[in-house]
Amino acid sequence: MNNFVFYSPTEFVFGKDTESRVAEMTAKYHGTKVLIVYGGGSVVRSGLLDRIRKTLDEAHISHIELGGIQPNPTDLKVYEGIELGRREKVDFLLPVGGGSVIDTAKAIACGIPYEGDFWDFFIGKAVPRQALRLGVVLTIPAAGSEGSGNSVITKTDGLKKLSLRTPEVLRPAFAIMNPELTFTLPPWQTACGITDMMAHIMERYFTNTEETEVTDRLCEGTLKAIIEEARKVMKEPRDYGARANIMWAGTIAHNGICGVGCEEDWASHFMEHEVSAVYDVTHGAGLAVIFPAWLTYMAGHHARKAAQLANRVWNVPESDNLKAMALEGIEKMKEFLHEIGMPVTFKELGIEHPDIDLLVRKLHENKGELVGNYVRLDRQATREIYETANR
Amino acid sequence: MNNFVFYSPTEFVFGKDTESRVAEMTAKYHGTKVLIVYGGGSVVRSGLLDRIRKTLDEAHISHIELGGIQPNPTDLKVYEGIELGRREKVDFLLPVGGGSVIDTAKAIACGIPYEGDFWDFFIGKAVPRQALRLGVVLTIPAAGSEGSGNSVITKTDGLKKLSLRTPEVLRPAFAIMNPELTFTLPPWQTACGITDMMAHIMERYFTNTEETEVTDRLCEGTLKAIIEEARKVMKEPRDYGARANIMWAGTIAHNGICGVGCEEDWASHFMEHEVSAVYDVTHGAGLAVIFPAWLTYMAGHHARKAAQLANRVWNVPESDNLKAMALEGIEKMKEFLHEIGMPVTFKELGIEHPDIDLLVRKLHENKGELVGNYVRLDRQATREIYETANR
Repeated sequence: MNNFVFYSPTEFVFGKDTESRVAEMTAKYHGTKVLIVYGGGSVVRSGLLDRIRKTLDEAHISHIELGGIQPNPTDLKVYEGIELGRREKVDFLLPVGGGSVIDTAKAIACGIPYEGDFWDFFIGKAVPRQALRLGVVLTIPAAGSEGSGNSVITKTDGLKKLSLRTPEVLRPAFAIMNPELTFTLPPWQTACGITDMMAHIMERYFTNTEETEVTDRLCEGTLKAIIEEARKVMKEPRDYGARANIMWAGTIAHNGICGVGCEEDWASHFMEHEVSAVYDVTHGAGLAVIFPAWLTYMAGHHARKAAQLANRVWNVPESDNLKAMALEGIEKMKEFLHEIGMPVTFKELGIEHPDIDLLVRKLHENKGELVGNYVRLDRQATREIYETANR
Repeated sequence: MNNFVFYSPTEFVFGKDTESRVAEMTAKYHGTKVLIVYGGGSVVRSGLLDRIRKTLDEAHISHIELGGIQPNPTDLKVYEGIELGRREKVDFLLPVGGGSVIDTAKAIACGIPYEGDFWDFFIGKAVPRQALRLGVVLTIPAAGSEGSGNSVITKTDGLKKLSLRTPEVLRPAFAIMNPELTFTLPPWQTACGITDMMAHIMERYFTNTEETEVTDRLCEGTLKAIIEEARKVMKEPRDYGARANIMWAGTIAHNGICGVGCEEDWASHFMEHEVSAVYDVTHGAGLAVIFPAWLTYMAGHHARKAAQLANRVWNVPESDNLKAMALEGIEKMKEFLHEIGMPVTFKELGIEHPDIDLLVRKLHENKGELVGNYVRLDRQATREIYETANR
């Protein structure tokens, strides 16, 4: 196990009707002038936004709004939010939505007090030292952004989709999580979220760090719970218990507890980011295509952990043939992904002829000549993985 | 799943040589006049205390000391610490040790700013609203106190051993955790710690709350990891990886993540507290005796979760006979406890003729007529459990 710092100071307020506590929590963390950030119509249609406005009004907390955040959120809305926030002197960000909305709010939160271009943080030119505080009302469990210090933004000019990781500065002060708010999520979006949280765990689980038994077991246990609860929630979208387990699993998957003391991988996420940046597909669906292909490469080149995953999560019997174990686990994973309605090939994702040359080129331009850590992947390896996903 | 708030703001600084960061961390959390709290000779003999003094001196952080905290810590040292801390105007507590030392420091931390008797907090007469901040240097992984807001203190007069739970006020600001500091722990103390952390998980795991799949799996996974790593560490006390996993498991077991959204039980802990208050045995060893007896009662009266534990943690095959599954799991647990050198009966614990009348009377005087939640235990039930432990 490597040395690590684990620091997850977010206050998670979880359960039925918890959105009624949004003003109380905002006041607790000293928000007085709030910028509410949200996406499309669903938080409007459901009346959630109105309820939040009313709660803030009653507590005499002033608020303004930035709506229209799209999936795969871009820098344009971040610039708009920074300008608006500065002009109106907001001191607190309140994203209401899922990962795209929260990630946009985070970029705004560190962009407002920064004199340069916020994009500097995403290309590694500068490190955010301070940020406005934020609280989250989560409506789409998937990205885990409610408990992480991370943000992923796409630069419109050049379609660069890059991520920022700053655990100290950008962790939300609080996250309000009411599973009932997810009852109306369409099956596709539910399944994409489930796939994304599973990927967040596996990106950490695949490590060469030795002696990570506690963390391994937390990863495997959370994956098993997700698989079981996912089957329930796809059958019965209004099953509160299943929605609650899925929602909480999304936080566990990404608040860092599943990766303490490990060198993490993240090649699959980086490979998927190129796919969704170019083809504007949903991130989780992209991962459903990339992850089994990535695992197939691992089965052939470094099967140990893939075999352990197959055994402990997918109930593949132990054997001396680690590669065969790993491959059987991948088949079970693909069956599961199909069961919840996910694609597992580019074709199933609706991309008939992916431009693999372009994907490989952009990936290595953005992330360097070697990607990932469990196996360091060069251009030939990532090409092979994209091609496997195209079969 | 019940509504819950999960808030674990402690910054865990984990790994080799991390005690060298104690001054930096104390300064980060605004400690300027520190009361170091410690127990017996081992932190002195090992040179750890000297190293900490030196680090604080170099950072110009002034410090005084309160040593001599005993296992099953009493109110006397708390009163001494409160008086000392007030007189010397300390603003930060730095316990260096295990649960007894940390729990004493917590009681001092909330006692100093309180006008009344700190014991008020433990008997429920008052709730601590504020406390001095504390940082921990952990040397004995077991109690989980480094990541919890809890404290257990024994009132010398009357031998009342009571616990205080205040997640908001008493969570340490930071916890420095170097597994190397645990290399020299004697096997008995190592095994007692392992038993205690397993009990912390099971107290949460045994719940009637429905739909707690994620939390169940986290509990089961952590237990499996502890069992595996415990076997390694008992064989090879200087196995860094095993010590690291055990140390981290102790935190996971008690920082709340294993119990979110559940009604917890805690009857076994309360029953053990009477045993260690009267007979001054080590808490973990007391639990090794009480927990299997408590589980045996559950096998007969409410076997569901005991059977799940047997299956998922102790690899007992599934069957329709839940009671038989549970009993087989208990046998495997006892075998494991014996394997690591723990007693599983009063006799093995060195108590030839326990005064069960006294234990039952004090338990229900301290904790009310019904104890625990998974099954609400009356005097007859707790007597039966103590008697089972006496076979």
